[in-house]
Amino acid sequence: MYEKKDKKPSETKSGLTSLAELGEFGLIDRLTRDVRHYHPDTLKGIGDDAAVIDAGDKVILLSTDLLVEGIHFDLTYMPFKHLGYKAAVVNISDIAAMNGIPKQMTVSLAVSSRFSAEALDELYAGVVMACNKYKVDLVGGDTSSNVKGLMISVSIIGEAKKEDVVYRSGAMPGDLICVTGDLGSAYIGLLILEREKSVFQVDPNMQPELSGFDYQIGRQLRPEARTDIRNLLIGTGVKPTSMIDISDGLASEVLHICKQSNTGCRLFEAKIPIDEYTKELAKEYKIIPSVAALSGGEDYELLFTVKQDDYEKIKDVAGISIIGHMTALSEGKYMITPDGKSIPVIAQGWDGMRAK
Amino acid sequence: MYEKKDKKPSETKSGLTSLAELGEFGLIDRLTRDVRHYHPDTLKGIGDDAAVIDAGDKVILLSTDLLVEGIHFDLTYMPFKHLGYKAAVVNISDIAAMNGIPKQMTVSLAVSSRFSAEALDELYAGVVMACNKYKVDLVGGDTSSNVKGLMISVSIIGEAKKEDVVYRSGAMPGDLICVTGDLGSAYIGLLILEREKSVFQVDPNMQPELSGFDYQIGRQLRPEARTDIRNLLIGTGVKPTSMIDISDGLASEVLHICKQSNTGCRLFEAKIPIDEYTKELAKEYKIIPSVAALSGGEDYELLFTVKQDDYEKIKDVAGISIIGHMTALSEGKYMITPDGKSIPVIAQGWDGMRAK
Repeated sequence: MYEKKDKKPSETKSGLTSLAELGEFGLIDRLTRDVRHYHPDTLKGIGDDAAVIDAGDKVILLSTDLLVEGIHFDLTYMPFKHLGYKAAVVNISDIAAMNGIPKQMTVSLAVSSRFSAEALDELYAGVVMACNKYKVDLVGGDTSSNVKGLMISVSIIGEAKKEDVVYRSGAMPGDLICVTGDLGSAYIGLLILEREKSVFQVDPNMQPELSGFDYQIGRQLRPEARTDIRNLLIGTGVKPTSMIDISDGLASEVLHICKQSNTGCRLFEAKIPIDEYTKELAKEYKIIPSVAALSGGEDYELLFTVKQDDYEKIKDVAGISIIGHMTALSEGKYMITPDGKSIPVIAQGWDGMRAK
Repeated sequence: MYEKKDKKPSETKSGLTSLAELGEFGLIDRLTRDVRHYHPDTLKGIGDDAAVIDAGDKVILLSTDLLVEGIHFDLTYMPFKHLGYKAAVVNISDIAAMNGIPKQMTVSLAVSSRFSAEALDELYAGVVMACNKYKVDLVGGDTSSNVKGLMISVSIIGEAKKEDVVYRSGAMPGDLICVTGDLGSAYIGLLILEREKSVFQVDPNMQPELSGFDYQIGRQLRPEARTDIRNLLIGTGVKPTSMIDISDGLASEVLHICKQSNTGCRLFEAKIPIDEYTKELAKEYKIIPSVAALSGGEDYELLFTVKQDDYEKIKDVAGISIIGHMTALSEGKYMITPDGKSIPVIAQGWDGMRAK
């Protein structure tokens, strides 16, 4: 939903405003400035993980995501089945980020003639596998030729009780910032795959060296959506005050919550959960591990805030880390390093990631 | 929703099944054969203009359509604003085809760096214009870079009372086949635009000769969705037994209704409504006018069936033509010519259209 980062910046075009100049979020703000709503049942439009539509005793959640070949995936190392699975999962994750239950999905494909029906069989097998795992009904879509490459567009409907929906906008100063699972491994997995691709391009007889990196590569090629967190939180008696899924990286997502909630934040670098081997690999690639978590993206974990009063309920829950707290807007958005330095939290994009 | 015809056939690929061999509908049948539903509120999945989801006292309708540059539109003659308008309208039309009311829409774009923000402003101005006209709330979407060209993916939510929804599957032998407006002009408009494009390519100093063809070009570049038909039919006291919108051409759509309703049909060629000047232009292009209606597509009129008992109620309604009737499946699918010949109704696609 209107928040995927472009991995390839656009070129400047003389006389006119280039898309690179605006950035994706600037472009969205610009394009949607004249949007008005006619229906009082549209409770939330643009600006969250999903739109929220009133449906009597419950709400309908609607989200959509594009995956474009050469931008979001590379078929050199992405098997079709994984691609279908991931396309479904990134949408299911958007519903999880609203504290909703995924229900129905449409999958549209634009595909050039270089693809065979067997390749698309595999792609759909992956979609259907995800639908079976997450109990989502595939209810429609559209297929089209494409001049070049493969493009997948998925839309998803979820539902929730009105009082259960969690928006990005509900965080208050003092709320604790929590994250599920661990971060940064999907990005390290991507770096490993890119490295083996370069080796293969130089010498096609080389076998890719992927063994030992199962966790990192799995996080990149076959992410899961944290639909389990909804029930986990119900079990603890905690309702998040705000929530978002981590598709673009921790930094970008925490800034979305700050913007929508009109707050600042403090993240504690030492508290960011990162797999130990991922930390080692990050160093091999000369990347500060926390930077892989902050800017890598595609982990599809959930970032959420809870009231400080809920600290006792949440502090010992396995698989949830408290990594900071919200502040007043005037206090800014900073990460505190182990030696006490304050570093501004910035959504870096994919190019500014490597440690100097 | 899973029924746009590819205008560019794919090439055969040795050893594997080519997409061209299967055709779009064969491909969809193949890809979705393992789909199962988990949610009893999924009343209708794949196989109609929209999916139908139970929401208590009403139903939610969900549809999605792709528009791909070089396949569905040509920016040589399609202004961005019209393109945005059309992308919205073709989706709104899917909701009209279910006898529903369009409510919320998402618009996703994949766009290469050759496009400026100003071009996308125009595109969105067209989307917003359609949303304002049809009272649809733009509630989200996704934006992405594209390696080449422009792709638009729209998803739409509509609503209806459960008892008001009209499916493709409800027609019975003896039901009257009706169509709104007139057919074939959008295709003739496309031929005029393609001709002027060829002229321009030969001699860029030539001005395109488009005056006098406003109706045909307007039908192609800026179609409208027949959301007015729902109220018109309520006024006459008639509820259609089946309905579909005409995106691919009358032949393809009537065959969808026959397939889903398990019936045959008789169309009467002389009854097919075609604009008089469109008939003349079709002859200039050596096309039988009824073939432009049967196979041209993109008119976005509604095709529907009504009970024979409703004949008196519907026969004099302005803007609705009775063009035939449904039959038992065993009687086949035929069009009857003015001189009494029976011609099989076949979904031809775009290449088999020219009269010999």
